[in-house]
Amino acid sequence: MTTQTEEFLRSHPRGVGTDNVDLLKTAVERLSACAQSCTACADACLGEPAVAELVACVRLNLDCADVCSAAERVLTRRTEPDPELHRGLLEAVVRYTGACARECERHAEHHVHCRLCADRCRLAEDASRQVLLQLQERERR
Amino acid sequence: MTTQTEEFLRSHPRGVGTDNVDLLKTAVERLSACAQSCTACADACLGEPAVAELVACVRLNLDCADVCSAAERVLTRRTEPDPELHRGLLEAVVRYTGACARECERHAEHHVHCRLCADRCRLAEDASRQVLLQLQERERR
Amino acid sequence: MTTQTEEFLRSHPRGVGTDNVDLLKTAVERLSACAQSCTACADACLGEPAVAELVACVRLNLDCADVCSAAERVLTRRTEPDPELHRGLLEAVVRYTGACARECERHAEHHVHCRLCADRCRLAEDASRQVLLQLQERERR
Amino acid sequence: MTTQTEEFLRSHPRGVGTDNVDLLKTAVERLSACAQSCTACADACLGEPAVAELVACVRLNLDCADVCSAAERVLTRRTEPDPELHRGLLEAVVRYTGACARECERHAEHHVHCRLCADRCRLAEDASRQVLLQLQERERR
Repeated sequence: MTTQTEEFLRSHPRGVGTDNVDLLKTAVERLSACAQSCTACADACLGEPAVAELVACVRLNLDCADVCSAAERVLTRRTEPDPELHRGLLEAVVRYTGACARECERHAEHHVHCRLCADRCRLAEDASRQVLLQLQERERR
Repeated sequence: MTTQTEEFLRSHPRGVGTDNVDLLKTAVERLSACAQSCTACADACLGEPAVAELVACVRLNLDCADVCSAAERVLTRRTEPDPELHRGLLEAVVRYTGACARECERHAEHHVHCRLCADRCRLAEDASRQVLLQLQERERR
Repeated sequence: MTTQTEEFLRSHPRGVGTDNVDLLKTAVERLSACAQSCTACADACLGEPAVAELVACVRLNLDCADVCSAAERVLTRRTEPDPELHRGLLEAVVRYTGACARECERHAEHHVHCRLCADRCRLAEDASRQVLLQLQERERR
Repeated sequence: MTTQTEEFLRSHPRGVGTDNVDLLKTAVERLSACAQSCTACADACLGEPAVAELVACVRLNLDCADVCSAAERVLTRRTEPDPELHRGLLEAVVRYTGACARECERHAEHHVHCRLCADRCRLAEDASRQVLLQLQERERR
């Protein structure tokens, strides 16, 4: 299915170069979904009677939302991209989404929002790692 | 179809009160899509050979992305909501998305990304207006 | 004292038009300080043993940070400004900063970070109102 | 001089642990100033008659603003910090601020806003590197 993200990538005046559109599209969409999930999970944790036990989860959710939002915007931009810069940012994203997934998984049994958020973090982590691998491979050539 | 946004709304420990989940879900999703479209369209305009003619479009896209992102986060939060504050923010969103749609429509014939972005702005404008109407109706009661 | 914000406003290729540089500079700087304060206060509330009593404060701080950050970016931009759009956004900012100040003031006696944050919200509220008044006056002419 | 940022750091219920308050305060303040400078410089470039020659500068400014804003928020938070995550993010910040400084320096002779922005990027780069060095040293012990 052609998504909005893909349509935009294909309508860009400078094309997508040698980047893999599918990988890129998937990463942008999952970073967006992850940022939204983390904002929602931080807020849901805040609304729980046991909020005091979820403090680390709120904090990590807020950080992960900020980092994923920034990365979503950066990856969306296709004019004069700098693969070296993208790499550094994606490495940070992989760490944040991984750490947030682990923290949410600890509460997944008790809170549906944590289970949902852990899933979205893992999807964003995997997609970011795929783009990262592609960038690393290309550099080696 | 139950979307991620709806799942989160339904998993919130404090429920959604008397808010209409469908309206809210649609607004959050379209604000997210609009913010992403505006970021993409600003960048695509920047990559056009005729960028000098698209300066107002880039500027409005950047503003609209920032306002929609803020509103997306605010509407996503369900703990201790303040309908009066939401109203003021949604009124601003309706103006920004409407203005950005009009600007993008001026270039829609020449640039696919402007046509796509105008559509996303209109969808976000309509959804925000629906939530706004619901908030205004409830206040009148 | 000439601040960074003022230097940038004065170095803009399109000038500042009939806008009052002092009002604008003050608004941008206070919106930035307010956004940072709200982010810090939300986090400090989260770290308090009595976090459960500060839930509304955290939520409002997060919203206010997002709205002020968006407004700071929008007001910083001087290319092709639209006073009508600025008005709507500043009206929302005045409401958010006022509401966040009131909530933080409720906890100011017990938490230094809430007292500090209430002050920064009031400063941002006043500066935003001044820019708003100038925009409204100009429109009346 | 005790700044707002320092007052907040010192009012945090969990303290600042073994982190160096001066380094942290300086980093947060410079990341904030850099984010604002990059937003202003992107917009000023967009308003230049020669915008077509400044496309790479606009793009890098937008990215750098997003990355620095995210890092400013993350570093501002003191509840349950994770040094390992901070490291990865700061490494990305050092690259973005360095790259943006180099690009702005190329235009510094012709555009005051590029000269101002390059300075702010270098200050943010240095401060982020200092925090990074402290984190790396502590890990080695």
